[in-house]
Amino acid sequence: MTQVVGILGGMGPAAGADFVRLFVDACAEHLRARGQPVRDQGFPEHWLAQVPVPDRSGALESAALGAHQPLEPMLQALGRLAALGSRAVAIACNTAHAWHATLQERFPQIEVLHVAREVSAHLAAEGVRDAALMATEGTYRVGLYEQAMADAGLSCHLPLADERRLLMHGIYEGVKAGDMRLAEACFSQVARQLADRHGAVAIVMGCTEIPLGLKDSAAVAGLRLVDPTQVLASALAVRAYGGARNLAGSSSV
Amino acid sequence: MTQVVGILGGMGPAAGADFVRLFVDACAEHLRARGQPVRDQGFPEHWLAQVPVPDRSGALESAALGAHQPLEPMLQALGRLAALGSRAVAIACNTAHAWHATLQERFPQIEVLHVAREVSAHLAAEGVRDAALMATEGTYRVGLYEQAMADAGLSCHLPLADERRLLMHGIYEGVKAGDMRLAEACFSQVARQLADRHGAVAIVMGCTEIPLGLKDSAAVAGLRLVDPTQVLASALAVRAYGGARNLAGSSSV
Repeated sequence: MTQVVGILGGMGPAAGADFVRLFVDACAEHLRARGQPVRDQGFPEHWLAQVPVPDRSGALESAALGAHQPLEPMLQALGRLAALGSRAVAIACNTAHAWHATLQERFPQIEVLHVAREVSAHLAAEGVRDAALMATEGTYRVGLYEQAMADAGLSCHLPLADERRLLMHGIYEGVKAGDMRLAEACFSQVARQLADRHGAVAIVMGCTEIPLGLKDSAAVAGLRLVDPTQVLASALAVRAYGGARNLAGSSSV
Repeated sequence: MTQVVGILGGMGPAAGADFVRLFVDACAEHLRARGQPVRDQGFPEHWLAQVPVPDRSGALESAALGAHQPLEPMLQALGRLAALGSRAVAIACNTAHAWHATLQERFPQIEVLHVAREVSAHLAAEGVRDAALMATEGTYRVGLYEQAMADAGLSCHLPLADERRLLMHGIYEGVKAGDMRLAEACFSQVARQLADRHGAVAIVMGCTEIPLGLKDSAAVAGLRLVDPTQVLASALAVRAYGGARNLAGSSSV
């Protein structure tokens, strides 16, 4: 028996669209792994909300967590996803998870997945002990991954100040503005520098725009890149097929 | 001022996900063409419903238009998209347009776009006079494109019986089952045969699964392929940015 699930997107819209693709792929994989036919009717009902949300990093920069402009549209969209019958919702934006606790509190009847916890559990289950984090300033500011990784027993390495600026440049002037060449240059440079400094570390692309900019990039060949969007999409597929909370990393379906 | 729009998907889910990607691309293109910055907040609110719908071609085959199993879930999803504020809705499945009239009648307050009319208007505006149609048996059975093309002054060539069977095989055992190699072989063979028979004809990929199977295919290089999903996604973007009905082909925004 499948459950209705939701995707809170629009942050940005290209990342939301890509999340649905990854979710559909994860569902097909789920069916195939169980020897079930992959056809339209075997997929769980799911809804994607792509709503305009004020800039998350900007809000976190300007007035710490007091600036709650992004919260209201997210709450409204989440309420609508819940009203549509969603039992679990994934947020297709890492930085937006700064408001995860409030979103989850307001809708206790649904599970709001937490990307950093899913990724940390996934890495720990794969035996990873060291990870480096590429993300937005907002995500660094709230320590989104640091806490989740520490809880899972992982060390988390952060980029230097100028590398962080390069990431923000690639996210805003690159992916969000449609300049993928610029995005690739920014992201790949930081990824290589992280690998040079920290060795064979798992590099977490902790902003949904980063994997879009590094798609098919030869400049990061050989690096161990981890896509949280993919991990989160798989986690949502587990919920959609009736799986329980699965933060230990092993499938419970 | 943007308007909320909806996408009725799930038929199949991979095509629905791809439709959102194309819609987001079309919106970015719209912003760029008007010299506006491309950033998250410039995109219109849009919702994707991916609901399980009984097989459309199967329903049309078994009992002509009397078999209305697919209608009920589509009506329900459309009603929900309307309740979410959608002013226009696109259906990410050609065959499902067999029920377009009923869907539009039941929700007169929203515009339900019609893929074959949009494509025909688009082709006519580009000076095309001759088109060949790759589609499902269901789409052929209801004459979805033939009528719209005739209204727009276009001739519509159809594949032979064995070519139609090849298309159905590529759609169901290929794309829907995740076997893209099989899909490409089936679709490209039919496309080449249509081009051999009819000359430099525009070949309409009139099922949302067909472009997925022919993505990056070298076997159809040089053929004039038309992707109705892309035309429909662009038409929906025009509506989202407040454009009027635009079946004459020229932008009214």
